[in-house]
Amino acid sequence: MRVNIKTVEAIRWSKRGIKILDQTQLPHLCRYRTCRNVKQVYQAIKSLQVRGAPLIGIAAAMGVALGASQSRAKTFEKFYQEILKNIKVLAASRPTAVNLFWALDRMKRAVLDHKHLSLSKLKQRLCLEAKMILNEDRQMCASMAEHGARLVKSKDRILTHCNTGALATGGCGTALGVIYKACSQGKKIEVFVDETRPLLQGGRLTAWELMRAKIGVTVICDNMVAHVMKVKKIHKVFVGADRIAANGDTANKIGTYGIALLCKSLKIPFYVVAPSSTFDLSISSGKKIPIEERPHEEIYNGFGKQTAPCHVSFYNPAFDVTPRHLITAIITEKGIIKGPSQKRIARLLK
Amino acid sequence: MRVNIKTVEAIRWSKRGIKILDQTQLPHLCRYRTCRNVKQVYQAIKSLQVRGAPLIGIAAAMGVALGASQSRAKTFEKFYQEILKNIKVLAASRPTAVNLFWALDRMKRAVLDHKHLSLSKLKQRLCLEAKMILNEDRQMCASMAEHGARLVKSKDRILTHCNTGALATGGCGTALGVIYKACSQGKKIEVFVDETRPLLQGGRLTAWELMRAKIGVTVICDNMVAHVMKVKKIHKVFVGADRIAANGDTANKIGTYGIALLCKSLKIPFYVVAPSSTFDLSISSGKKIPIEERPHEEIYNGFGKQTAPCHVSFYNPAFDVTPRHLITAIITEKGIIKGPSQKRIARLLK
Repeated sequence: MRVNIKTVEAIRWSKRGIKILDQTQLPHLCRYRTCRNVKQVYQAIKSLQVRGAPLIGIAAAMGVALGASQSRAKTFEKFYQEILKNIKVLAASRPTAVNLFWALDRMKRAVLDHKHLSLSKLKQRLCLEAKMILNEDRQMCASMAEHGARLVKSKDRILTHCNTGALATGGCGTALGVIYKACSQGKKIEVFVDETRPLLQGGRLTAWELMRAKIGVTVICDNMVAHVMKVKKIHKVFVGADRIAANGDTANKIGTYGIALLCKSLKIPFYVVAPSSTFDLSISSGKKIPIEERPHEEIYNGFGKQTAPCHVSFYNPAFDVTPRHLITAIITEKGIIKGPSQKRIARLLK
Repeated sequence: MRVNIKTVEAIRWSKRGIKILDQTQLPHLCRYRTCRNVKQVYQAIKSLQVRGAPLIGIAAAMGVALGASQSRAKTFEKFYQEILKNIKVLAASRPTAVNLFWALDRMKRAVLDHKHLSLSKLKQRLCLEAKMILNEDRQMCASMAEHGARLVKSKDRILTHCNTGALATGGCGTALGVIYKACSQGKKIEVFVDETRPLLQGGRLTAWELMRAKIGVTVICDNMVAHVMKVKKIHKVFVGADRIAANGDTANKIGTYGIALLCKSLKIPFYVVAPSSTFDLSISSGKKIPIEERPHEEIYNGFGKQTAPCHVSFYNPAFDVTPRHLITAIITEKGIIKGPSQKRIARLLK
């Protein structure tokens, strides 16, 4: 039986700017706020009010269009310089997810490709480009979900990590989109999500999204994954990605690499779900992906309460890299890459 | 160069009862409170004000002695019935750590072995027995540390999990005792501890103990272990144990099994440090060890703030079981059992 599932909208245009669902307040408060200029978009991305690799790209593209719409430049040259400055600001918000740079690059190309237009038409064109990026992402989510759901059987017990749903994309999500799709096809699946310290995107966001969509989910702590895999007999793991190198090595939220190693040990298929904009073919392997380190307060004072003495050392990498040999398949909007390799990736993406 | 290290005292007798360091308040507050009767000792163990397998055993033994000292029974039979009742209460506090049952059993035997004494002498004898358990534990910690430190070289980078130090024992600790000892021998080691959700014994307690002892430590989140093992090149892992079956399968704080699997994958030696009272030879394998499940609030509201929506499902096992084939060696006060097996364990413990 087909089930109708409605997912949340994480970003949209409003009259006064870009309306975003402030994800730092979830699950306590579901509150939208409006970013009225480029600096506020930068802040929203940096502070993780907007997060998730595809959604960061969308927000940044919308930020460029918003900045352009507010430009008072009279000449193309001046206008273009402003755009480049805004792109530089937005590019400095987060270093790991490649979708950000991909979207900013696309906005820059849109300016250059339409330099023959009047500035007022060009501003409209940039709004359109950002809308296209959002719509294409929605489409890509639907296609990934369609491909990925073929790998899901009724009664599967699935583990996912971090948040890769409607809160991370312009559509139904990447890894979580697969779960939404399988559920909408009437497949009965059992979903587990680890809370994903330090910022708890699994416990706060994925659990909230699934609850809202009336899909049952069990939240566990990050260190319970191996035990749950064994005692609850997890069948499959689906995760998203922030950047995939040409050879298939995948950077994703911290914890992913450990889960992939556990999957290998316990013979559980490990799937990465990501749109083609997540691939960075300019990078040959995962070793070259920059890993963002975030403030130590996220570990020792992340909940408004001291959770460790603050005078010791901390290490807070936001991502890790899973080598391709641990990945069963990468699911993209263009199809599934089983046993990812440079050759297979290049063939599918061309 | 030898370094003098002073560790904290987690439990002691006071005039009015048993003085315990309330570990639920650390690292925010270092506050002792006094348990004045058996029920308060039970509550202190159940609520994790006192925790750590060896310390639970010590606290329970002291609880039995405290209860005995307050008895108004006039006959041995009545006195003994009261003791049995108190033992039953204390035994219900936590199900997994075997040291609890071992210590209670020893107190019961002490009663029966000294039934010829007057009740007033018998009460003194039970106080002495509890003190002996505490002192023996201190001695065992020193011996384990001595054996374990032989496995540590200067410049080692060591990961530990949960808290296994002075806050978990009557002495310097089990796994953390090895680290204290190696440091006191002048070995320069780098210590990493994962915070150990949901109750953060690593981030709150181990980091606090080591800071107090002026030993450098880096706190990470639980899901960073695999990444840290790779990028920081961890040499060795030392953990404690709550119950070890006759074949060497080891129950310990949730997360241990996952760390052991990662060690196997990444070829890192994985050591368990535990006194002989942690072995339960009546149990043939880890499959038979009862695993405590704790309240879901620990996951979704552990920091006085909602960290997940409370209307989804949770699973909160406090322990997991690491099969013996993942354990490089078990370090006890009697020596080191390399490649633990039923035969080797029986030989060392006899």
